[in-house]
Amino acid sequence: MIIVMKAGAAKKDMDEVLKRIKELGYMPHVIHGSTRDVIGAVGDERGKMVLHSLESLHGVENVVPILQPYKLASKEIKKESSVVRINDEVSIGGERVIMMAGPCSVENERQIVETAEAVKKAGASILRGGAFKPRTSPYSFQGLEEEGLKLLAKAREVTGLPFVTEVINPETAELVAEYSDILQIGARNSQNFALLKKVGQLGRPVLLKRGMSMTIQEFLMSAEYVMSEGNQSVILCERGIRTFETATRNTLDLSAVPVLKEKTHLPVVVDPSHGTGNHHYVAPMCYAAVACGADGLIVEVHPDPEHASSDGPQSLKPAKFQAMMDKLRLFAEAAGRTL
Amino acid sequence: MIIVMKAGAAKKDMDEVLKRIKELGYMPHVIHGSTRDVIGAVGDERGKMVLHSLESLHGVENVVPILQPYKLASKEIKKESSVVRINDEVSIGGERVIMMAGPCSVENERQIVETAEAVKKAGASILRGGAFKPRTSPYSFQGLEEEGLKLLAKAREVTGLPFVTEVINPETAELVAEYSDILQIGARNSQNFALLKKVGQLGRPVLLKRGMSMTIQEFLMSAEYVMSEGNQSVILCERGIRTFETATRNTLDLSAVPVLKEKTHLPVVVDPSHGTGNHHYVAPMCYAAVACGADGLIVEVHPDPEHASSDGPQSLKPAKFQAMMDKLRLFAEAAGRTL
Amino acid sequence: MIIVMKAGAAKKDMDEVLKRIKELGYMPHVIHGSTRDVIGAVGDERGKMVLHSLESLHGVENVVPILQPYKLASKEIKKESSVVRINDEVSIGGERVIMMAGPCSVENERQIVETAEAVKKAGASILRGGAFKPRTSPYSFQGLEEEGLKLLAKAREVTGLPFVTEVINPETAELVAEYSDILQIGARNSQNFALLKKVGQLGRPVLLKRGMSMTIQEFLMSAEYVMSEGNQSVILCERGIRTFETATRNTLDLSAVPVLKEKTHLPVVVDPSHGTGNHHYVAPMCYAAVACGADGLIVEVHPDPEHASSDGPQSLKPAKFQAMMDKLRLFAEAAGRTL
Amino acid sequence: MIIVMKAGAAKKDMDEVLKRIKELGYMPHVIHGSTRDVIGAVGDERGKMVLHSLESLHGVENVVPILQPYKLASKEIKKESSVVRINDEVSIGGERVIMMAGPCSVENERQIVETAEAVKKAGASILRGGAFKPRTSPYSFQGLEEEGLKLLAKAREVTGLPFVTEVINPETAELVAEYSDILQIGARNSQNFALLKKVGQLGRPVLLKRGMSMTIQEFLMSAEYVMSEGNQSVILCERGIRTFETATRNTLDLSAVPVLKEKTHLPVVVDPSHGTGNHHYVAPMCYAAVACGADGLIVEVHPDPEHASSDGPQSLKPAKFQAMMDKLRLFAEAAGRTL
Repeated sequence: MIIVMKAGAAKKDMDEVLKRIKELGYMPHVIHGSTRDVIGAVGDERGKMVLHSLESLHGVENVVPILQPYKLASKEIKKESSVVRINDEVSIGGERVIMMAGPCSVENERQIVETAEAVKKAGASILRGGAFKPRTSPYSFQGLEEEGLKLLAKAREVTGLPFVTEVINPETAELVAEYSDILQIGARNSQNFALLKKVGQLGRPVLLKRGMSMTIQEFLMSAEYVMSEGNQSVILCERGIRTFETATRNTLDLSAVPVLKEKTHLPVVVDPSHGTGNHHYVAPMCYAAVACGADGLIVEVHPDPEHASSDGPQSLKPAKFQAMMDKLRLFAEAAGRTL
Repeated sequence: MIIVMKAGAAKKDMDEVLKRIKELGYMPHVIHGSTRDVIGAVGDERGKMVLHSLESLHGVENVVPILQPYKLASKEIKKESSVVRINDEVSIGGERVIMMAGPCSVENERQIVETAEAVKKAGASILRGGAFKPRTSPYSFQGLEEEGLKLLAKAREVTGLPFVTEVINPETAELVAEYSDILQIGARNSQNFALLKKVGQLGRPVLLKRGMSMTIQEFLMSAEYVMSEGNQSVILCERGIRTFETATRNTLDLSAVPVLKEKTHLPVVVDPSHGTGNHHYVAPMCYAAVACGADGLIVEVHPDPEHASSDGPQSLKPAKFQAMMDKLRLFAEAAGRTL
Repeated sequence: MIIVMKAGAAKKDMDEVLKRIKELGYMPHVIHGSTRDVIGAVGDERGKMVLHSLESLHGVENVVPILQPYKLASKEIKKESSVVRINDEVSIGGERVIMMAGPCSVENERQIVETAEAVKKAGASILRGGAFKPRTSPYSFQGLEEEGLKLLAKAREVTGLPFVTEVINPETAELVAEYSDILQIGARNSQNFALLKKVGQLGRPVLLKRGMSMTIQEFLMSAEYVMSEGNQSVILCERGIRTFETATRNTLDLSAVPVLKEKTHLPVVVDPSHGTGNHHYVAPMCYAAVACGADGLIVEVHPDPEHASSDGPQSLKPAKFQAMMDKLRLFAEAAGRTL
Repeated sequence: MIIVMKAGAAKKDMDEVLKRIKELGYMPHVIHGSTRDVIGAVGDERGKMVLHSLESLHGVENVVPILQPYKLASKEIKKESSVVRINDEVSIGGERVIMMAGPCSVENERQIVETAEAVKKAGASILRGGAFKPRTSPYSFQGLEEEGLKLLAKAREVTGLPFVTEVINPETAELVAEYSDILQIGARNSQNFALLKKVGQLGRPVLLKRGMSMTIQEFLMSAEYVMSEGNQSVILCERGIRTFETATRNTLDLSAVPVLKEKTHLPVVVDPSHGTGNHHYVAPMCYAAVACGADGLIVEVHPDPEHASSDGPQSLKPAKFQAMMDKLRLFAEAAGRTL
């Protein structure tokens, strides 16, 4: 932590700051500058908010953190990439690019089973589908809930595909964990710390979506919440951030992939369906995501998007998904990976 | 809802769209334009996501909603302003500008009781203080939890001030409701729909903070979640949105006050402490908030900000708070209100 | 400037960094931390981009600037507030809140003279009006150009009001300066450095609008461009920044007023017409701007907004402007100022 | 254009709106809705701001544009992709992905000639280099100006590579056009309409960078400025937008590539150097850009980034650039293109 003093700060202000730094268990080192002094506070900054409070002191211009506030998620702690094992056949973070696909919402048995069969045939290895749906409007379809989980389990039984589904509430997290192979935390719950702690205590891999206005650092702090409860199986998912641009539903931040790869050992997947909100843009953004290093993709596929209960405009039909997978294979190979 | 067809869309595409509009229970009206046709779909759009799925159809350029998706929160439904009653003496949304003040976190009895006494003396009528704290880092202080609620109740007993405190989890919502006068939903939980439904079922007024990247429309949809469960006592709180600017912690969107006053009957308060993140800017933004029509303010006050467990840099000391209140009274009068 | 080394950086990397720092004319001071080292580079950082290039060196994590990069605009250089004199009667930055008002575009003599008379009667002391109009579309009305300047001069002759008008091009800057009392730099030209240098060489006060995605620091750097050419008469104008919110045309960042007041001695005015884009929100945001310390306001007034060539939806009619001024006087008094 | 009336608007308000629509040369079509009426105004909306002024009328809720405001840049006008020819060998927008590379600033003959030779050897076909530099700080290096243009011409003479360089001012645009093969308009000048018109009048291809807070629609409107002056050779360049994220200098919006490909016939290139601001992220974002359909890339390459006059941290060394090109070739092939 660096404490920057105001130009012309009084000696007694400086003395007070030095005293506080020591009280907080750090060693201060003063650098006298040409117009102002700065103080380095040496020690472990992880409880950094405490040092941050020095900003309230007289004569302090600002406080600049030096260390990243996450530990378990950091590549400084664990240098080799983590591989999250889903079942005996599927794991995320290895050489193979993993495709998760399926409808936004589970609607009925035929819909989910047919979609599962179609995406499996095209090369997907994980089924996605929402049973508990967080919706902006209380009047929108809220999902089939436990019935949806049963239908997903049925589709798994038929196809052998493990599935990922969203958990929206600590109270129902155990129920979802009984059925599902991966627990998804949605963008709107990405800083729902009670829920993050809860899924950290369950024995299931977690797919953590980035929040709409979440910095990379905050994203890794949310992963840290899950990991600090004992669950190291966290998959990070870039799904678009909110910006001023309205031509797409969100702005898919693909540079987050190499940034995350530099800062963390956790696997990174990309969701171009929510990232763009428009099925026309999904395929090119899938190619791009794999090209810049994503370990997997999560894509919305629906047999009849015009009648979908949610997110129709961004869903691919199975035939388009198949065509996209054929081309995606070429990009995976160019990236030195398999699909 | 307006459906815009692509330039040169085929007749069969148009026919398909018209068929679907009727299937969904709307009446289509076609307007033939010079380069493209548009279709008005007449009917209640509240389940609008369904019509939105028409974007997947061939020949459709885009779908433009006309109605706001909220009902209960809308001024179209209820024209007169709502007044939320807290206790026999205090209500929010009337002539009097209501001041809520207190520390970010409850730390101990002396801290909370002394602060309560100081803010009461200065003219505050509601005490604020966090017992359950949602923190970005799992390693930061997470609040005193129930012990904190007891200390808040103690401060209320001593001063007579009702208090507002945050609820972070459906599981502990009832516990918080037993103690507190107002339930606060924090910015990070502003689209935690499970939590919104839960506080909608409890009999307590709700202070709903705007999310960091929440549009005004989404803000009102979150209020709608609470209201649609039967709880009409919702107070909206602007607390800054996330933008590119880093000179302040968030960008306080004061224009949200007149915008909300135009669209909803619910009272609107402003939080300049989180909105700016810097105690130097709190007083001017309080004056501005009252000048543009806010019904109240929520301000962080701490007797010793340099030692605060959280948010020290944005907290006012009691003497500064008192000085600010004296000046604020002049602005309240200029606005034709009392403080 | 603080150079943060990577955890475990090699000694030879550190030596290279120290060597480069000295080559660049700074004195390095190393602080050995618990997990990484940081280096303070002491010296004048104004040519800071040079030191920034150290980020390319092996073993460097990042480079953190300490000093603000502006000098002439900084309050550290000149502590007392600057007052920009417009003519014998009008100056900006003193006790009196200055109101600038008029149409977005000058359209004809009657329109501009009548508006000038109306706003003068209501208490405005500067006329605004666009002659050269920067428009998003090449097919939109581009202004009356020199003819517009002549009409503004005519309105000044009739009413005695000095006027501010936009300059969009170094080539026509001198022409505009011959006619006008204040040269406005629009938001889209706020980093048009060729234009900033040009108006820095002319003898006219400059009203510099903040760019749509400009940080406060960049805003002051643009002021520095004008000032470093010898023109100290710069008035800063907050006019809204671009965010995700669409309920308003821009998000008026009123907290920029106290932030600027802390960092610079230059006067600060606010433009709520462009800031909100909606005449309903102009009056409350005027009140708020004065309440938080603005030295003036610039407001669009048009006698017939529905027929305006540009910006009709955000223009006030003269009667509404008059009513707003009457109420604004109360807020100016509450702020200890006159109007 | 769709005019949405307020719920319960009076008949006389509606009549006034209908009258105005006809006055403006449009045909109104009323659709009576369940809670409010909407009016379609049929006619060419390109001068749409005029209709927009109807928002000022009583009883009007808002005005929704239907048509895109650009014509010449639109794919509706010209369906086949445009190919911009640079010289006999190089054109942009065809099967071959075009690589532009070179230093941010031209510093001296050796630097620019050596870099030109290195990037040519690695497969680049256009040299980039800044002679007139728009810098945030007036105290930063502002470029070698005409001397820089001469050095670029020298490098072209030696290597045969055409070059692109920035033009920052209408006054010096002709000078730059005499030397250079492509005129670059930088992000900060992307709405400097005087400059856009000027380069529209010169006979040189234009590389137009997207502004930091520019929507796709505004980007195409700026292209329209150039094209409406008679110059159809416009190359669009995505270079990152400004968001809240600070881990990268900007947020590279790669989804802009497929969005632009859908809306315009103009070629689209990507600048990952400015887009990310960090040389570590340049290669992955180059791969991604080609994967999602970019027609070319513009990349900063410097033989000695630690001593660069500008943008060192985001520049690649020649060896790294060569390695990146070797891998990029695989992605170009996967995309069905050559490099």
